[in-house]
Amino acid sequence: MNGTGSENLLQRTFQRVLGQWRDITSGAPDDAPLAPGLPDRDADRVRRQMRACLEGHGGEVSARARAAALGRAYMSLTAEGRARFLRILATEFDTDRQAVAAAAIGLDELDDWGGRKRRERQLRAALEPPRLRLLTQFNALPDGVKFLVDMRATLLALASEDEAFADLEADLKSLLANWFDVGFLELRQITWDTPAAIIEKLIEYEAVHEISDWDEMKSRLGVDRRCYAYFHPRMPDEPLIFVEVALTAGIADDVQALLSPREEAEAAADTAIFYSISNCQRGLDGIGFGGFLIKRVVDQLSAEIRRIDTFATLSPIPGFRKWLDGYLAEAPGELMTRGERRALAAFCGADDDAECLAVLIERPGWHRDDALAKTLAAPLARLCAHYLAREKRDTGRALDPVAHFHLSNGARMERLNWLADTSPRGIARSCGLMMNYLYEVDDIAGNHESYTGAGEIPASSRFRALLR
Amino acid sequence: MNGTGSENLLQRTFQRVLGQWRDITSGAPDDAPLAPGLPDRDADRVRRQMRACLEGHGGEVSARARAAALGRAYMSLTAEGRARFLRILATEFDTDRQAVAAAAIGLDELDDWGGRKRRERQLRAALEPPRLRLLTQFNALPDGVKFLVDMRATLLALASEDEAFADLEADLKSLLANWFDVGFLELRQITWDTPAAIIEKLIEYEAVHEISDWDEMKSRLGVDRRCYAYFHPRMPDEPLIFVEVALTAGIADDVQALLSPREEAEAAADTAIFYSISNCQRGLDGIGFGGFLIKRVVDQLSAEIRRIDTFATLSPIPGFRKWLDGYLAEAPGELMTRGERRALAAFCGADDDAECLAVLIERPGWHRDDALAKTLAAPLARLCAHYLAREKRDTGRALDPVAHFHLSNGARMERLNWLADTSPRGIARSCGLMMNYLYEVDDIAGNHESYTGAGEIPASSRFRALLR
Amino acid sequence: MNGTGSENLLQRTFQRVLGQWRDITSGAPDDAPLAPGLPDRDADRVRRQMRACLEGHGGEVSARARAAALGRAYMSLTAEGRARFLRILATEFDTDRQAVAAAAIGLDELDDWGGRKRRERQLRAALEPPRLRLLTQFNALPDGVKFLVDMRATLLALASEDEAFADLEADLKSLLANWFDVGFLELRQITWDTPAAIIEKLIEYEAVHEISDWDEMKSRLGVDRRCYAYFHPRMPDEPLIFVEVALTAGIADDVQALLSPREEAEAAADTAIFYSISNCQRGLDGIGFGGFLIKRVVDQLSAEIRRIDTFATLSPIPGFRKWLDGYLAEAPGELMTRGERRALAAFCGADDDAECLAVLIERPGWHRDDALAKTLAAPLARLCAHYLAREKRDTGRALDPVAHFHLSNGARMERLNWLADTSPRGIARSCGLMMNYLYEVDDIAGNHESYTGAGEIPASSRFRALLR
Amino acid sequence: MNGTGSENLLQRTFQRVLGQWRDITSGAPDDAPLAPGLPDRDADRVRRQMRACLEGHGGEVSARARAAALGRAYMSLTAEGRARFLRILATEFDTDRQAVAAAAIGLDELDDWGGRKRRERQLRAALEPPRLRLLTQFNALPDGVKFLVDMRATLLALASEDEAFADLEADLKSLLANWFDVGFLELRQITWDTPAAIIEKLIEYEAVHEISDWDEMKSRLGVDRRCYAYFHPRMPDEPLIFVEVALTAGIADDVQALLSPREEAEAAADTAIFYSISNCQRGLDGIGFGGFLIKRVVDQLSAEIRRIDTFATLSPIPGFRKWLDGYLAEAPGELMTRGERRALAAFCGADDDAECLAVLIERPGWHRDDALAKTLAAPLARLCAHYLAREKRDTGRALDPVAHFHLSNGARMERLNWLADTSPRGIARSCGLMMNYLYEVDDIAGNHESYTGAGEIPASSRFRALLR
Repeated sequence: MNGTGSENLLQRTFQRVLGQWRDITSGAPDDAPLAPGLPDRDADRVRRQMRACLEGHGGEVSARARAAALGRAYMSLTAEGRARFLRILATEFDTDRQAVAAAAIGLDELDDWGGRKRRERQLRAALEPPRLRLLTQFNALPDGVKFLVDMRATLLALASEDEAFADLEADLKSLLANWFDVGFLELRQITWDTPAAIIEKLIEYEAVHEISDWDEMKSRLGVDRRCYAYFHPRMPDEPLIFVEVALTAGIADDVQALLSPREEAEAAADTAIFYSISNCQRGLDGIGFGGFLIKRVVDQLSAEIRRIDTFATLSPIPGFRKWLDGYLAEAPGELMTRGERRALAAFCGADDDAECLAVLIERPGWHRDDALAKTLAAPLARLCAHYLAREKRDTGRALDPVAHFHLSNGARMERLNWLADTSPRGIARSCGLMMNYLYEVDDIAGNHESYTGAGEIPASSRFRALLR
Repeated sequence: MNGTGSENLLQRTFQRVLGQWRDITSGAPDDAPLAPGLPDRDADRVRRQMRACLEGHGGEVSARARAAALGRAYMSLTAEGRARFLRILATEFDTDRQAVAAAAIGLDELDDWGGRKRRERQLRAALEPPRLRLLTQFNALPDGVKFLVDMRATLLALASEDEAFADLEADLKSLLANWFDVGFLELRQITWDTPAAIIEKLIEYEAVHEISDWDEMKSRLGVDRRCYAYFHPRMPDEPLIFVEVALTAGIADDVQALLSPREEAEAAADTAIFYSISNCQRGLDGIGFGGFLIKRVVDQLSAEIRRIDTFATLSPIPGFRKWLDGYLAEAPGELMTRGERRALAAFCGADDDAECLAVLIERPGWHRDDALAKTLAAPLARLCAHYLAREKRDTGRALDPVAHFHLSNGARMERLNWLADTSPRGIARSCGLMMNYLYEVDDIAGNHESYTGAGEIPASSRFRALLR
Repeated sequence: MNGTGSENLLQRTFQRVLGQWRDITSGAPDDAPLAPGLPDRDADRVRRQMRACLEGHGGEVSARARAAALGRAYMSLTAEGRARFLRILATEFDTDRQAVAAAAIGLDELDDWGGRKRRERQLRAALEPPRLRLLTQFNALPDGVKFLVDMRATLLALASEDEAFADLEADLKSLLANWFDVGFLELRQITWDTPAAIIEKLIEYEAVHEISDWDEMKSRLGVDRRCYAYFHPRMPDEPLIFVEVALTAGIADDVQALLSPREEAEAAADTAIFYSISNCQRGLDGIGFGGFLIKRVVDQLSAEIRRIDTFATLSPIPGFRKWLDGYLAEAPGELMTRGERRALAAFCGADDDAECLAVLIERPGWHRDDALAKTLAAPLARLCAHYLAREKRDTGRALDPVAHFHLSNGARMERLNWLADTSPRGIARSCGLMMNYLYEVDDIAGNHESYTGAGEIPASSRFRALLR
Repeated sequence: MNGTGSENLLQRTFQRVLGQWRDITSGAPDDAPLAPGLPDRDADRVRRQMRACLEGHGGEVSARARAAALGRAYMSLTAEGRARFLRILATEFDTDRQAVAAAAIGLDELDDWGGRKRRERQLRAALEPPRLRLLTQFNALPDGVKFLVDMRATLLALASEDEAFADLEADLKSLLANWFDVGFLELRQITWDTPAAIIEKLIEYEAVHEISDWDEMKSRLGVDRRCYAYFHPRMPDEPLIFVEVALTAGIADDVQALLSPREEAEAAADTAIFYSISNCQRGLDGIGFGGFLIKRVVDQLSAEIRRIDTFATLSPIPGFRKWLDGYLAEAPGELMTRGERRALAAFCGADDDAECLAVLIERPGWHRDDALAKTLAAPLARLCAHYLAREKRDTGRALDPVAHFHLSNGARMERLNWLADTSPRGIARSCGLMMNYLYEVDDIAGNHESYTGAGEIPASSRFRALLR
């Protein structure tokens, strides 16, 4: 995601920084470059540098210059070398066990308020690992924030395989969560007048409906279309998350129609359809601003275009087909009405409804066979509604990740749309079905409560009818 | 410092925010405004709101809207009401004693690494007081950062009289230290083309050499003068700290000459004199960026004007006269040479040197009496040098705060200047003496080490001669 | 108006230009500076340079570099030297009499359309004086436009005394009229966030109600006040004309009240009062954009603040007192009713109404004597209404210049206000009277027609009552 | 060139304008839209509107609103309708023959200076056709300047077939020449951070070496490449002309190598190669700023990158092949040396050198046949050098338009490059040959003089050797 381009940029800017700081760092880092794989001899040099940064010799300004040198060194390493670098940070600059124990002992017996508070502060200080300070020092550099975001992306990958990295990853996450507080983010509208370098990134980062070329991107920024992204002031050229919106007459039910080029504005547009939301920075996983983004855009559009009074999504159902395969394999009981069953028999030799369904949705191009598609519509919709509204994780959240995202933002389930995404991916992942989630401004807080509290899933009567 | 103007702005912007969020907050805050003194009945409403924000009913977006309502309520209170508001926050939303104790018990006996790490994380979480989250929620508001900076200014005043506020103040400081990391700050040159609203603030905030009117300010931004300030991206109209610089031929020794208007650029300018550094936000006390500011400006000026190769200050010695009075009162022994003593006798009836000095520097206008001034020059300079270089606090840092600031930034003591500031304030605080601290780029890190480590004070041979 | 500051700037920028072009101009201008008074010997050098620019040796780029050198030379001259420089331009680079005559002869006898058109083009070319091309060449310089505007200010002064400069002035006017077409101008709102350098100029240029200091200026940009100025893209730091507006409840009738500081916004504001319009550039005299400015501001305010639906001025009547003195001296007949006459007799020994009036309005502080002021109100208002609506120049336009400006913009006479400007200047120039001109959007075109066509003066019935 | 996109924009903006002005124009234009072909009945309405604009009923502001309505009407017409509209303007709003004659008669007999000047001014006024004022009025509109530039593009096409449009086209050209004076133009560097909308236009407008897609464009803005364009402040989204530059080690001789993507910066780059210059606005034909653009870019690059000290082009020779065909057809005498002739005989049956050449360069892919290409190199180079340096128009200017452009800008002929452009177009138009023109800063003015004065063509000795 954050490819060579940005790394080259980082290297360039570090060099500039080093130029700037050059006269300030006495005892500058050895000039000999590190070997890219960070063999033991070089690992020692890195270790010493880290220690020097933390001890702050020569003052905080010098420490930051040293951190720059370290950062440059890190950028020059191979993936293996970087893993070694991070392992040193993760294991050798952790909290001091003795100090923590000393501060913790007897804390519960302290009775005077002032004394207890002082001890709590001591303990909190002891629990803060030194490496956190080093991570912070990188921020004095140009692109230091991007550097840390990319470092966390690397750590997330490493931590998934080796627990030793988990704590360092968590430290970095807490630091970034602080810095990427939504109050610091800047909402920008993306238009065809946005710098090409940023539009290029959106094309690359789009995760829902792939953008094939610049013409398609232009069309997504054209008549009756809107695009908004969050940016951080210290990463002004890097979108964090973006949403694509279509202004339509009524709630849209067909994403291919939405994506095709238009010539003229829709006179009767009264609805904003959020048809794609993509996160851009893997290193910010788990630091959520999607909910804020949607609401900021709702506010902005309401204020700007008075006639728009409905806000809904046209969303993929990424987990449906996978769930369906498992479900059908377990040969469930009653799936459909007698009439539906008869209709199905015309297409399928199998006795069993479930088997029959499983066979038919494997048939290539089934959705272009009108009669077959018509026959499949009702049973698939009913199964999908069940999947969306009834299937949950242990924690009580909806199994489908997109459903969970919108429900926890306070949306409700509005309408399930048949053959709404007939792209190969749409057919493969959700049998062509798509969902409209509705953001009804007055109900958002209540919906959120119902969902996160009681675990109830707000839905339109139309959708609920599918569940009976 | 942060007067009515900015409060009005805050109130305006909160109203705007509430407007924006209005449809999102269901169960919006009661509309009846709080009584300004926050009597008990209203304190209960505030308490409930705080709890609601922390419990996050209706989702994080709603919580932030509630925080906005709380913030608006706070702004409408009197000083007394605000103190009550903050006391609730300080005492009722602190860490949970039981939870802390539970997490701490037995920590030192945990032997497996993974288990200990998990417990440390638990403990860290327990030590984080809930109010910290509430403080963070204010950041989603326009001017939320300024709101918190001003709140800390209020807390600093309260905490100096009542320990109950100290922990809340410390929480807020840690939050702000994180957000005001120097890497986030933006250096801007201030010129006559800077918005009037910002220039007005500099006039107000100038703490070293008062600016009497706009003409004087214009002259300080004119020929051979520079001014730089740090800003935070979320407080773009509020300078945090600024420095005023004069480009001179050689190291300047007279601040009145420096402040008088000039017509033409100095052809032979080879030196940048930092003659005034002022902090603007009381709420950021103790979060130091002065050292970074000086070095950034040194970098910038070096790059921009090749012929400038000397960087020094012309600094006040704010504590000299106060120290001197105490020193003289203790009737010290040898103060001066026989020649000096004889010269002094011509002006003073007293037998005792110290008494004599004490009397003479009380004489109004002594510095305009050439013969007297000449007689006082040597003894006062010697005493002042002693004060600057020898008088220290228990911690080992220099007693004079300006000296401590520059020494810990890596400067050295360069030259003491006689009758360098003959303004009433200059005479009253330092008998007209001023110091040049020199920033020699190659020595900065070493000087810093000498001072912060061994407690040695780097000085020019000329200055050292005064100490013999 | 365009003082030393801008000239210094010009000299600086010319030097920069010359630096830029230095390598391009072969045969660069002699380095020896011209003598400031431009004696004959140096005048010859100037003449040669002008010729070289016009002949375009070395190409158009070189010609422009030469024009820069000439411009720099001009800036270095004294007023006398500049007059000589301009005289050379005015008299030696005029149209070629022979060429004009040759092209004109027989033109009326040409019968074929094509031939006549060709001849017309020849004639037009012959009528274009060479110096016009030289004036244009200055535009390639930074601040070239400002240079020409200032040059025209100088020419206007010279031309008023010596007809020889009139044609050059007219050439320059036509060039500037072309470049300052209103379509090129940029409307900017001036606020307290506008650069200090521009606000300083507004303080200086304000021609109607003097601004005494920065605090007063801040108040004029504060609550319920607006200020707009036109700028040219090539003079971005120089306002061309600006208007000050107050948002009031109803049409204001007292300018002192308008100018005094306010604390809070007026909840019932429904009217925009244009209380000051000032031209800033003498060199643009006669190139009118005042009418456009008013209408642009009306548009902008209408769009921005829905509740504002009345647009009027509170204007000085600069010529009233001067006219009144003449009028009274000619001892006119009936001036007032018997009742008024009796009331007046209480204050004045004179027999004659006119004489009595003339005496009384000379009495210092008459407007603070309530009884006297009340007595004078009706007769002065009647005379002033007569002056405004009946006294005209030969051309039919209103004698009062402010009245003429607003009437030709399509406003109507709305209301005459007694003791509306009691500043010394207001009393001296218009006996404290001020006018409201009303811009009724639907009537603007019609009012303009009535005034510029039939010479009729649109007025409210209230105002017309004064004329009976 | 200026397609539907911009027309739609114009229509939108006119509507906005009409909205803005709506309240000001009383007696607004009929609401019924014109028929697109402008039949006689509608032509009458247009005629009346034009007259109303010129007579200025309702004031200048109203006139401009009317001009906006007229402009909108024009935009709604078909090509045929527009031609009718323009014909009305061209033939019915021309100068008044009688007035011109009256002012011209007896002019040559006027002896007093003042009288003659007055008469000249009268005559000049009479020679200014009324339609010029109408054209100017369009400038008060958003995009009015672009409107006029596009109108001139239309007029140039019409005038090439019907002389009746020529004068209107010339009027418009003089107006635009005034407004597009180079002093008003803004040089912008185009980078990958430039808005996509502008980069898209460059891709479209590139006239020399076609840009196939966005990747190629990105590469032309990448490492060691530069791009600069001129813009007008009133057409900020429309490039007027742009130049593409490559930074190379030595003078480049192969445009395909230049256009292929690069990974890394060239360490030894000392030369800036201007390899493509494209005009973007047909409506500005004949208003030259190419020479200024080159010199501004030379200045900018010299200042920015010290090591660059050579400035040259790698230019097409668009007219060579066409000229060559004619030349060879006339069977010229001696073309080549005996050795060359013999070498050629190996490939060609023809007796005649010229015929032989003519045949061989028709052979598809001849340039990929090494032996053949080697044989053709010397004779073709010699012929091309002759074409470039010896073939001239009657006016004395070089026959090849690119050669003329650079020579009149002061460049010299530096080097002819064999097989420097092997694209189909390069082979077809210039047998693969390309020229380097060298801009030697010190010689530019002298070269210009030699070329435009004596008609001499400056050339390197190497190039001159080809001419012997």
